[in-house]
Amino acid sequence: MVKEKAEKTSYQLKVPKGTKDWDGIDMVIRDQIFDTIKKVFKRHGGRTIDTPVFELKEILSGKYGEDSKLIYDLADQGGELCSLRYDLTVPFARWLAMNSSVSSISRYQIAKVYRRDQPAMTKGRMREFYQCDFDMAGVYDQMAADSKVLTITSQVFEALGWNGRYTIKINHRKILDGIFEVCGVPEEKLRTISSAVDKLDKLPWAEVRKEMTEEKGLDPEVADRIGEYAVQKGGVDLLEKLQKDEKLAANASASAGLADMALLFEYLQPWGVMPNISFDMSLARGLDYYTGVIYEVITEGSAGKSKDSSKPDSSKPRKPVDADEDRSNDPSVGVGSVAAGGRYDNLVGMFSGKQQIPCVGISFGVERIFSITKQRLAAASASLQPRLSAADVYVMAFGGKGFTGMWPERQTVVKKLWDADINAELQLKIKPKLPQQFKAAETLGVPFVVILGEEEQAKGMCKVKEMGLPEGHPEKDGVEVQLDGLADEVKRRLEKWRAEKEVVSGLQALGMQ
Amino acid sequence: MVKEKAEKTSYQLKVPKGTKDWDGIDMVIRDQIFDTIKKVFKRHGGRTIDTPVFELKEILSGKYGEDSKLIYDLADQGGELCSLRYDLTVPFARWLAMNSSVSSISRYQIAKVYRRDQPAMTKGRMREFYQCDFDMAGVYDQMAADSKVLTITSQVFEALGWNGRYTIKINHRKILDGIFEVCGVPEEKLRTISSAVDKLDKLPWAEVRKEMTEEKGLDPEVADRIGEYAVQKGGVDLLEKLQKDEKLAANASASAGLADMALLFEYLQPWGVMPNISFDMSLARGLDYYTGVIYEVITEGSAGKSKDSSKPDSSKPRKPVDADEDRSNDPSVGVGSVAAGGRYDNLVGMFSGKQQIPCVGISFGVERIFSITKQRLAAASASLQPRLSAADVYVMAFGGKGFTGMWPERQTVVKKLWDADINAELQLKIKPKLPQQFKAAETLGVPFVVILGEEEQAKGMCKVKEMGLPEGHPEKDGVEVQLDGLADEVKRRLEKWRAEKEVVSGLQALGMQ
Repeated sequence: MVKEKAEKTSYQLKVPKGTKDWDGIDMVIRDQIFDTIKKVFKRHGGRTIDTPVFELKEILSGKYGEDSKLIYDLADQGGELCSLRYDLTVPFARWLAMNSSVSSISRYQIAKVYRRDQPAMTKGRMREFYQCDFDMAGVYDQMAADSKVLTITSQVFEALGWNGRYTIKINHRKILDGIFEVCGVPEEKLRTISSAVDKLDKLPWAEVRKEMTEEKGLDPEVADRIGEYAVQKGGVDLLEKLQKDEKLAANASASAGLADMALLFEYLQPWGVMPNISFDMSLARGLDYYTGVIYEVITEGSAGKSKDSSKPDSSKPRKPVDADEDRSNDPSVGVGSVAAGGRYDNLVGMFSGKQQIPCVGISFGVERIFSITKQRLAAASASLQPRLSAADVYVMAFGGKGFTGMWPERQTVVKKLWDADINAELQLKIKPKLPQQFKAAETLGVPFVVILGEEEQAKGMCKVKEMGLPEGHPEKDGVEVQLDGLADEVKRRLEKWRAEKEVVSGLQALGMQ
Repeated sequence: MVKEKAEKTSYQLKVPKGTKDWDGIDMVIRDQIFDTIKKVFKRHGGRTIDTPVFELKEILSGKYGEDSKLIYDLADQGGELCSLRYDLTVPFARWLAMNSSVSSISRYQIAKVYRRDQPAMTKGRMREFYQCDFDMAGVYDQMAADSKVLTITSQVFEALGWNGRYTIKINHRKILDGIFEVCGVPEEKLRTISSAVDKLDKLPWAEVRKEMTEEKGLDPEVADRIGEYAVQKGGVDLLEKLQKDEKLAANASASAGLADMALLFEYLQPWGVMPNISFDMSLARGLDYYTGVIYEVITEGSAGKSKDSSKPDSSKPRKPVDADEDRSNDPSVGVGSVAAGGRYDNLVGMFSGKQQIPCVGISFGVERIFSITKQRLAAASASLQPRLSAADVYVMAFGGKGFTGMWPERQTVVKKLWDADINAELQLKIKPKLPQQFKAAETLGVPFVVILGEEEQAKGMCKVKEMGLPEGHPEKDGVEVQLDGLADEVKRRLEKWRAEKEVVSGLQALGMQ
């Protein structure tokens, strides 16, 4: 056979710009986040679909406005022209249009998307990154699906252990439209004025007003009228105040939006979401395709003025972005909403031609949630730290002079444990040294070791030792156990250990500190 | 705000050639397969890494021989030239070379790879498909890691419920090399003769001999000597026979290979893998980079002569393919090995320049495992069928004249269940009809429904009903339960139901039929 020669590489060993390898404990934490989110999605009837990583180029074109230039194309190697997906929303809408027998579905998708943007690794802006979307398509009673998506959002952050430390900013496209109409914004300025309002989370009103009047030529009186509305935040109180506003009541769009919000707040109450809701009149979001309620989730330190946002590039027009962009990847929006979404009733029709399927959804910014989770884990107690390996037991052997290594005996014991569904490891050395075996067990962080010895073996016994017991503990040196019932004994001890250690399991425990 | 207009699409709504959307029950089954495999990988200390879907073009070049033409390139949009990954082995080797502090790791990766091949959907040959790899990198005692990888392979198929219905064909590169030397194959014909031998799983010896002598110009006497060896299959018996062969004993390569096999069989014995092993002298595998043991897993109907393979394109030279190709995607090899792998000690050195890290690994062909699993599920009992939704409870309400729909009450009850980690659903209709609610519960396949009624509610009670109870069962119409302790009661009933229904959980149960 031809033997490979070790060639010297003449090129740089690296991953492409804006991408990274995920490994080590970061990978474990990210997987925990995915598992946590998936569990909530499934609890709410979520089913996943898996679409190809590239789509026909024409499917994506005309969906992202100016940002289309960020789409990765595949080389033309003959055949169809394809592009890497830019988000998960357009492929979902394409799927709905292709599967016209599906009249309603709660679908989630956790997958990578691709944007040929200028990467900013420190800010978590990557060219390849995950999106994590839950969307409800179909006709439900007014605001019922919207309230469910917001409940799911809240339950995701509770399951991640955020324990109320997040705010769901919420507004409604129709209320915004109504306010702009009532204040007298000319039709052709609606979009640009809306994008100015959206900057109120980062800029004081005076600066936003300046942008409206000086840059965008809005009548200062109109701007002032907008300002009176846009700076308001609150909850049911604000809603009631706006409902009493005669000008808004007389406006069809505003009053429809306010009626929606009233229903939404009513439905969110029994589901325990209202304490985390902030009705925020300045929330506008850049996307054209939203048609109803819009929302964005922020957490401690993820909103407010930052070095980065204090110099907004106001000369650059606000880009028409897709549903997911500002949630996780757009530095021009906020300093870090950790999730965002809204209702988009007309997108599927862009593919199906006529059949519209109303949709409402949420997208979680995994990279940001990861950064925050990692910080919180760093500050958390040792017992909450995830382990690099899933190994629960390390099987080792020791002996005196003439020690054989007990390889076949270790093989037999480890097999017994595997058969009982126990994650057991052993050193892949025929004659291992005891200190090396203990070191391996410690590195893996196993809670228990099983120690074989030639004398004990002869009596049909072995030792089970819990790691990390304090000096003086009666079982510090382990306990003798019959080889026969070993798997049951280890299982029992593991269950007890888990019950004591993990009162609340997973990331949710972060919220209990 | 600008309103989207429903445009008529002027292009075909489809996914790119050779790709597909995964959805519905297929998606559920595939996820179950992934979860099952991952559990075994983790049991054996497997850690996952996630590499980018595209690599620098130069990383992939020179690794796949002729098949390099199947690599998808990204368009040159400025900046680095990149290609979609072709397998997971080369990115893993690249990662090892970049992370030189890692001297040993058991890593798994389950991810999509891309090949611009002629798709054959019915045969499961796609342009975008999953690979599912486990590899052990590092220096371990001779054959210890090899035996562990084969044990993992066996445990994966047991966990998938194959219950012994698979054969691990095994051979050794050094034994093959030795045999070819002993038989007198000229150095320059080694590769082409090896690839002819590999066809013995599909062709009778006479045809393979013809290919060797007529097409490839091998001396007929040499061919006959090879034939005597290559047609042999067996276990420890065959090994002992070969060890007594004086010509092989005198050959350095063959005797090293046979010594490896002896150790391997010794180690596989206590781990219960030997009953599924077939030492198959005709197994050669196409890949240049294997340096030791090689293996391939077949199952009922996945090997032997097929319509497809009875006409091998012998005019086409056997392509130098990567570790994973023939496992899942290469129609020219076998009719369906469901997993394959081997030892490759020199690949990492191609990247690192000098530092070699010996590796041994296995790759599972997910698409084929999926097809077989789906067939077996179709023939299995109803209780083993996966459910489309994870919902366990459906909360509904009914009432007589003036029925309000009990929306807030249903909201409160469903919230109680969610808080107790129960997957509960409800109809998102303020005034639902009872038959529609029952229909939804049946569609979801929930085992239990909770029924609210205005009279029961007034007494602080509701009804819990198990679905699908036979006529005459005392609880056929449900039982009255206090609203107060509802979550506990439902949890208790769910656990009991699960314990009765799922003696062995997951796909493993398929093997118990």
